Formats: sequence, C-alpha cells, structure tokens
Amino acid sequence: MEKILEQTLLYDFYGELLTKHQKQVYEDVVFGDLSLSEAAEEYQISRQGVHDLIRRCDRTLRDYEEKLGLVKKFGETRRLVDRIHELAQEYERTGDGGCVRKIEEISRKIGEL
Amino acid sequence: MEKILEQTLLYDFYGELLTKHQKQVYEDVVFGDLSLSEAAEEYQISRQGVHDLIRRCDRTLRDYEEKLGLVKKFGETRRLVDRIHELAQEYERTGDGGCVRKIEEISRKIGEL
Repeated sequence: MEKILEQTLLYDFYGELLTKHQKQVYEDVVFGDLSLSEAAEEYQISRQGVHDLIRRCDRTLRDYEEKLGLVKKFGETRRLVDRIHELAQEYERTGDGGCVRKIEEISRKIGEL
Repeated sequence: MEKILEQTLLYDFYGELLTKHQKQVYEDVVFGDLSLSEAAEEYQISRQGVHDLIRRCDRTLRDYEEKLGLVKKFGETRRLVDRIHELAQEYERTGDGGCVRKIEEISRKIGEL
C-alpha cells in the first residue's frame, strides 16, 4: 500500500488514540503543508524532534492495527458491500431470487467481521 | 446495559490493548471463577491491588470505547444486518423487488459505519 494511503487509513481509525499534540503535528506534517523545519518552528521543537514524533506516531498507529485490525476489517466490509451491490444489480437485470439469498448470506458475514 | 455484558463487549473489542498481566487477572476475576482474594494469592498482589487493577482496566476499556466507539458500531451493524434478514424474508414471501433495493441501501449504510 502506498505510504500516504496507509497513513491516512490508520489515522482515520486510530488517530483519536494519539495525544492532542501528536495529532496536531502529525496532521500538519503528514496531511498538511508543513515541512519538518516549518513544524519545528511552529511547535518550538527541533527538526529531529518533529521527525521522531512522526515516526513514533506511525509506529503507534501500526501497533493498534496489529492488535485491533480495523483497517483490514474495513477493507473486507467494503469488499462485501461491493459484492452486495453487484448482486443487487444482477437481481435487477434477471429477477433471480438466488441473488437475494446470496445477498443475505453476505450481509451475515459482514455482521460477523 | 448489564455490567457484565458491558464488560464482555468492551473486553471483546479492546482487550488486546491491555497488558498481558492485566488481561490475565481481568479474565480470571471478571470472566473466570477467581474471587478477589484468590486472584490476590495467585498473582501475589494485595486484594486491594486486584480490585484497583480491575477498576483501572474497566476505565481503560471505557476510554477506548469513548474514542473509537466500536461497541456502538457493532450494535448498529447488527441491527442493520437483522433488518436485511427481515427484508430478505419479506422478499421470499412477496417477491417484491423493492425489498432488494432497500437491502442494498442498508448494506451501503453498513459500509459507511
């Protein structure tokens, strides 16, 4: 996965578990427009300090994912919802009741993720 | 919600975020058969220490729920999956294609939780 996409997903799911300070710096540097040097000036820490904070946040976010796996679950849910969408379209075309039974089965799987 | 049910759900979702020691004691006392005194002897800590550990774990688990809301999401997902099940049954009885469209809509909602 591309690094920024991975960071976005992880931050989406676990960002709330970082401290307020970590969140501010992380957002400014990773998703915002601040360079390490600019963030260093903004937050009155060293450039190296900003760099370390970002790495530490990345590691923390990955640790949470390793333990809770929400990003993975989210991907699976999306895949199953897409499959339901396809089956609903197939039903529209064919009127085949088998599609509806498959849809129900998939929705159960989602409930068990 | 009954306390033991709340504890079970919270532990199910966030238990992995406790330390190994916390998990052992928590499981033995809350879900297992050990009394505070028995756990105190087993883990060589005071009875009060066991009591505090359980309270601290409960607070930690609730804090995670406050930040991530996974138990709440889980409840909503289950509710929507049940609704899909009802609609699928209605479709079986009536053959009404409108049910399928509603099912698809609900599955989208699940994907957005």
